Amino acid sequence: MGEGRKPEPEATEMVEKSFEVVEGGILAAEGFVTAALAAGIKPEGLDMLLLHSQAPAAAAATLTINQMRAAPTYVTEQHVADGSARTVIVSSGNANAATGEQGMAAAVRMAELAAQATGVEVTEALVCSTGRIGVQLPMDRIEAAIPKLAQKLSRESADEAARAIMTTDTVPKQVAVRFRVGETPVSIGAICKGAGMICPNMATMLCFIATDLAIEPALLRSTLQGAVARSFNCISVDGDMSTNDTVIVLANGAAGNDTISAETDAGYEAFSEALDFVTVELAKKIAADGEGASKFVEVRVTGAASYEDAHRVARSITNYNLVKTWIYGGAAAPLPGATASPGGEFNWGRAAAAIGAAGVPLEPTSVEIRIGGIAAFVRGEPAEYDEAAAVAVMSAEEIAIEVDLGAGDERATAWTCDLTPEYVRLNAT
Amino acid sequence: MGEGRKPEPEATEMVEKSFEVVEGGILAAEGFVTAALAAGIKPEGLDMLLLHSQAPAAAAATLTINQMRAAPTYVTEQHVADGSARTVIVSSGNANAATGEQGMAAAVRMAELAAQATGVEVTEALVCSTGRIGVQLPMDRIEAAIPKLAQKLSRESADEAARAIMTTDTVPKQVAVRFRVGETPVSIGAICKGAGMICPNMATMLCFIATDLAIEPALLRSTLQGAVARSFNCISVDGDMSTNDTVIVLANGAAGNDTISAETDAGYEAFSEALDFVTVELAKKIAADGEGASKFVEVRVTGAASYEDAHRVARSITNYNLVKTWIYGGAAAPLPGATASPGGEFNWGRAAAAIGAAGVPLEPTSVEIRIGGIAAFVRGEPAEYDEAAAVAVMSAEEIAIEVDLGAGDERATAWTCDLTPEYVRLNAT
Repeated sequence: MGEGRKPEPEATEMVEKSFEVVEGGILAAEGFVTAALAAGIKPEGLDMLLLHSQAPAAAAATLTINQMRAAPTYVTEQHVADGSARTVIVSSGNANAATGEQGMAAAVRMAELAAQATGVEVTEALVCSTGRIGVQLPMDRIEAAIPKLAQKLSRESADEAARAIMTTDTVPKQVAVRFRVGETPVSIGAICKGAGMICPNMATMLCFIATDLAIEPALLRSTLQGAVARSFNCISVDGDMSTNDTVIVLANGAAGNDTISAETDAGYEAFSEALDFVTVELAKKIAADGEGASKFVEVRVTGAASYEDAHRVARSITNYNLVKTWIYGGAAAPLPGATASPGGEFNWGRAAAAIGAAGVPLEPTSVEIRIGGIAAFVRGEPAEYDEAAAVAVMSAEEIAIEVDLGAGDERATAWTCDLTPEYVRLNAT
Repeated sequence: MGEGRKPEPEATEMVEKSFEVVEGGILAAEGFVTAALAAGIKPEGLDMLLLHSQAPAAAAATLTINQMRAAPTYVTEQHVADGSARTVIVSSGNANAATGEQGMAAAVRMAELAAQATGVEVTEALVCSTGRIGVQLPMDRIEAAIPKLAQKLSRESADEAARAIMTTDTVPKQVAVRFRVGETPVSIGAICKGAGMICPNMATMLCFIATDLAIEPALLRSTLQGAVARSFNCISVDGDMSTNDTVIVLANGAAGNDTISAETDAGYEAFSEALDFVTVELAKKIAADGEGASKFVEVRVTGAASYEDAHRVARSITNYNLVKTWIYGGAAAPLPGATASPGGEFNWGRAAAAIGAAGVPLEPTSVEIRIGGIAAFVRGEPAEYDEAAAVAVMSAEEIAIEVDLGAGDERATAWTCDLTPEYVRLNAT
């Protein structure tokens, strides 16, 4: 498989789902407008985004727990605390992280300008940046750009919005769904960017979710936290936690449903399912489009004593460099410069080592490992397998690693990509 | 810097040390013999080692905490539990891990054959294997080889011993020192192998230490544990904990010193210092010879509230792929295929992100980061630096990353190497 060629993960099966996938990206939701432009932060291409709700909106955000987190995450945290926001200003190409007082002033200034340009209170404006760490933002360009962005706000710019937040992403990432609250159709549209420094709590990622649902802010926040735990916190590109990760959801009620204020309210379950779908789809797109990735890997851990155990084992596998290089090398044809290895490319033992390295107590004699459906290790014993089938599995663009710990009924899924020479080259700067 | 070219770390400064570095490798210690041969486990080259003490010896071992650890680690754990051992049998090229009951029987059989061949009780024989996971050992070859190894035992085979345990190592790793207990000269000789799957608790590493010191087993064990915590548990090549990591020390008393039985005994401090030196030197050699490595990195964290905090921050940096790819790319000349990055190669912000990702509470405004002596981030603010000096630092084969957390007086040091396309190629199997 050529370097740089990216796998495209299959959409999650949608059997008996209470929502449908629709077109429209982040502007599938009513009452939102966006604008994007090239402000000159990146050497070329779109690098600023303005997202605005035409009506007051409930808002929630989840943020990186990196102790050196970027200035804009502090501004966003503060302004979203009251559960409401209408405007999000995003810059790409510079993270505004490790930038000290000047960086903090820049993040505050971005919020002020975005609020002013969209006619809202400053505390209604949230700020995100992504890109290089430790370099001051070119504020002259950003100050000039924000009023222009406000003038360009429209319902026609969803694709541009998805492209404006990309850094080393090779494809824009967006998804939208529609579901019903009673008879009222409600939409969720979302965009995200990922690529490198991806190991959530959170990924190096930004995600913006717009919905025309009417919902109480506290419930919106807890629903977002649950969805992020099951999606963005289950992916890894390189195991590196970032300084800027942010997921923001705005819910402006433009759909006109009766406001949802409790998990038992009509329509809440449909919303939660739809939000889970949106965030998992975007998380999988990030993993598949990891820097330099040529393969997409889904790790499914079952039989765990607890969800935490299952999650830790899944994450240990998705973060294990030697699993990820094996997946990279697992093409049918030998790679240039690859070291010959007895037994060929079906090096499932790396997964066994990663399972054992998770820090989860386990009995090897209870463990089963399947690679692409092929039993490799069964209750403590290596299994016989068909060489041709193994080559076929390892040649595919998508590979499933299934682990049954044999210790309980809990399960977790995580997603990653392979580790390639291209990843190293992209980041050798 | 060309791929495959390896840095050679400078030996630790030896100001006012109570020992001297000597020749002789693992056989610098009296009363030990070794033999190595090519049994055909690897496609070519030496792949078995027998180490034997001519007299009864105190023994201690530290083992991987990987929950899928290899069969030989169970045999070694059991046989060293009484604090005595005389014979160590090692095979290279196959880890005998994830090999089930057949693998366990093979490890037990290796101990039996080695004990028989060297005329000791089976519980005096320890077993180690390293190499591919999930494949059964070729026991016919091993059974044939062990008696031959016993016949070859000699005092002339130290270099062969160091080479016999190599897998993807590019250079043999050995060190020996001499110190005094009262008037009595005492020697320590040691060999190790590393290369990949290196992230201790423990590294994917084997280390064998032979000393002619007379010491009580319990004190030998606690001293080894301390030395391993300060050395092998402070290195990372790829962050991947292995299934087979083992450090073994045998102390046979051939030097004739009064047996050391307490930390307050004469000579204990000299022994502890010498053992620290030996294990740190070998750990640094492993980091410098990491798979595909072209650079050696020392991370020194100071100003921490606790040793644990310092160690976690140091380890977060040594495990952060984006720090390691930056170090790789930090040559003066642009790399083929490298993406241009504004600001050049002095991408210290990656280190800031890694510090923040350690899970250690910290105040960014108290933190300082120096790269090769150049202040990059000072008490929360990015610093001005000289571009030419930065290029010079990033072009060197050895790079020091210094972090002052500004939170206390504790410190820790860790070592790693860069992450290169060659690492991926070596492991794409």
